[in-house]
Amino acid sequence: MNRVKGMRDFDTELINEKDRIISRAEEVFTSFNFKKIDTPALEYFDTLSKQGAGGDEIENQTYNFYDFSKRRLGLRYDLTVPLARYLSQNTNFSIPQKLQRTGKVWRYEDTKKGRYREFSQCDIDIVGSKDMRADAQVLFCAYCALKNIGLSGFTFHINNRKLIDGVLNYIGIKEEQKTGVMRTIDKIEKLSKTELYREFAKYNIKKIRADEILNCCRLEGSMYEVLKGIKKRFPVEDEATVREGFLELEKLAEYLTAYGINNACRINLSIVRGLDYYTGCVFETKIKNEEKLGSICSGGRYNKMLGSFIGKDVACTGISIGVDRLLDYFIEIKKEEKTKMNNKAIFVANADEEHLVSAMNLVALLRKKLKSGSFIVETDAMGRKLSNQIKYADREKIRYVLIVGKDIETLKKVTFRDLDKHSEKQINADLAGIKKLIQ
Amino acid sequence: MNRVKGMRDFDTELINEKDRIISRAEEVFTSFNFKKIDTPALEYFDTLSKQGAGGDEIENQTYNFYDFSKRRLGLRYDLTVPLARYLSQNTNFSIPQKLQRTGKVWRYEDTKKGRYREFSQCDIDIVGSKDMRADAQVLFCAYCALKNIGLSGFTFHINNRKLIDGVLNYIGIKEEQKTGVMRTIDKIEKLSKTELYREFAKYNIKKIRADEILNCCRLEGSMYEVLKGIKKRFPVEDEATVREGFLELEKLAEYLTAYGINNACRINLSIVRGLDYYTGCVFETKIKNEEKLGSICSGGRYNKMLGSFIGKDVACTGISIGVDRLLDYFIEIKKEEKTKMNNKAIFVANADEEHLVSAMNLVALLRKKLKSGSFIVETDAMGRKLSNQIKYADREKIRYVLIVGKDIETLKKVTFRDLDKHSEKQINADLAGIKKLIQ
Repeated sequence: MNRVKGMRDFDTELINEKDRIISRAEEVFTSFNFKKIDTPALEYFDTLSKQGAGGDEIENQTYNFYDFSKRRLGLRYDLTVPLARYLSQNTNFSIPQKLQRTGKVWRYEDTKKGRYREFSQCDIDIVGSKDMRADAQVLFCAYCALKNIGLSGFTFHINNRKLIDGVLNYIGIKEEQKTGVMRTIDKIEKLSKTELYREFAKYNIKKIRADEILNCCRLEGSMYEVLKGIKKRFPVEDEATVREGFLELEKLAEYLTAYGINNACRINLSIVRGLDYYTGCVFETKIKNEEKLGSICSGGRYNKMLGSFIGKDVACTGISIGVDRLLDYFIEIKKEEKTKMNNKAIFVANADEEHLVSAMNLVALLRKKLKSGSFIVETDAMGRKLSNQIKYADREKIRYVLIVGKDIETLKKVTFRDLDKHSEKQINADLAGIKKLIQ
Repeated sequence: MNRVKGMRDFDTELINEKDRIISRAEEVFTSFNFKKIDTPALEYFDTLSKQGAGGDEIENQTYNFYDFSKRRLGLRYDLTVPLARYLSQNTNFSIPQKLQRTGKVWRYEDTKKGRYREFSQCDIDIVGSKDMRADAQVLFCAYCALKNIGLSGFTFHINNRKLIDGVLNYIGIKEEQKTGVMRTIDKIEKLSKTELYREFAKYNIKKIRADEILNCCRLEGSMYEVLKGIKKRFPVEDEATVREGFLELEKLAEYLTAYGINNACRINLSIVRGLDYYTGCVFETKIKNEEKLGSICSGGRYNKMLGSFIGKDVACTGISIGVDRLLDYFIEIKKEEKTKMNNKAIFVANADEEHLVSAMNLVALLRKKLKSGSFIVETDAMGRKLSNQIKYADREKIRYVLIVGKDIETLKKVTFRDLDKHSEKQINADLAGIKKLIQ
């Protein structure tokens, strides 16, 4: 039997590293006062495909089906739409709501290296603030989380949908062409120039106009540098949407500087993000020299999406850490550490069947007396003879072995073997004697 | 929009308590040297419905569907069948494999209080040992995990499928009736006597024979007491299957006594568990005076299931903690604790817009210098005036507020307010001064 196509199993090394990444992120989220919530893996398909959320187009990317009562369900493809649904069922919330979620999401996409049909995200969102200090807080929190995970050399690439929208107005792109154009801009790094022209042509954008768009998107650099460039090239004073976007980016740059993370931030006009629900600043995160990995932390401001669920607009901004991409990165760079003996592990062996119960007694004693969680206390589950029990301890990198044999009866002694130092001696089978040797 | 029927959202209190339960269990599992793995939520339906795993009958209880490439998929209904599939793809494993998994599972079942269509399990399994010391280890580990979660007053109810099978032979139940009879025995506590007769009748079991079965199942009590009762009433010497089951239970009782948990264990002949894949000892766990909650930790030995995946039998035994049932129990008994101010939380307020950047600088300083994770450092995300910022801090139970205003410029001072003591003073805006007051 195979695992489902495009999904992966996690062996012990992989799941332990994944757990580490998630707990490091959550630790920082909590220290920023983001409160955790959780929602089911399944949502009604109407929720997932709602106009303003995923829209009709997500149908082909979503695992969806009818249940036995003919309800149409789908596996969530992100943690943002379920958040909106959650809040729509508890509309009395005070603002701001600062929320974090961690969980698996599913997308029926082309499978290639580094893309999985099941993957995990860690999200934070600030609900109810339209102020740029919320966006800055989200980015600062993501920065601290990525640092806490152990990442360095990463850069936030920031853009603003309003700015791009205004620029497209200025170039003369029609309203009905914009979604298509945005989606094409989102592919700039993935497609060749010819392919991009072909994409633009789908939306009736000629080559010369496409070049204009591509030129605009080329602006990229440190925040104040790009802000200067925008002022020079675009009608910041004349076009209201351009101005709004510009001012938002300018504020954001000021706040990110105040938080001292400006060196990790750039403005990049080619970043628009695929999803329709973004309305203001958008963010992606790239690791230096690992650009092919894609964005490991993405998000932005979505001031309209909640409105389509609860009837009135609520400003939101948030970011999502792509746990599986980070995981692949960390597993890849993890040095070939020679697995060492575990100093915090004891194997209690029974020299023969007659001393099995005494060995079990000792296991129970150690487990009661050694601080739980700080020690592995292991024993045979197979009924193996002594030499094979010790082989198992060795394979499991358990450093200390206590052998319970006939000396336990009269002398109350056991054999203590250190598999790292290859030493062995008789010791008293009491806690004091054992503790001295293993700590 | 609603959440999907039968599933639940987790607010912050609920998810934090759930995370606590899981991490307490995993901590103990790891200290018993169970290695964590993880598998996808989706499996091919053929895997889930395999003969010897779930079988055809799980079809109606499983969320299953065809994907866009006409592959039939299903959401896993437990963590045991995916374990078998996982091992079947890595058949070189050494034995024993001691594995733990935590995750959500889905069942399309009647929804009633305490039953969810999405719920979480924490599992441990020992793969490759047919010895009763493995079953004892699994139960001892579950015992320590439940204790570590904070549970007391729980009892393991233990039975053996071979014993019951032999007893049914002895009574004269035919092979083809047995599955039905086992499934009916599993409902003894849920159904009335009349309903039980009706169930038995479905398998052609007359009332008098049904009474015989029900009488056999009435044996329940401390382990050695019930073992004595079995010896008296059943043909332990003459019927091979009865004898095998009896000897297994006897060994298990010896080992559980050696581990010192015999007082938490009973033999109960009415425990058979629904699933077909159990072949030896089976376990359920009940909380005293909370019997209606059902079993909060269940499992048993399944020596055949892996064989249906990898072609040769591999003996396995394991147990699964029902996280959601435990969660409901703990949330219910949680005393109405008056929410106290959080002593490990600071809110940095800006007295006015001119001092926003200075406030952000201070946030960045505190975040860098206070040990990450040990403090919440919060600040305004809304652009609110000072009094409303403080109201928010109060609502969030953040005890300490630092107000950054004009004194920061010339005097390098901020106002320190303790929302618990309702005190306020001017202090130096440096780390030493702040640390002294909050620690």
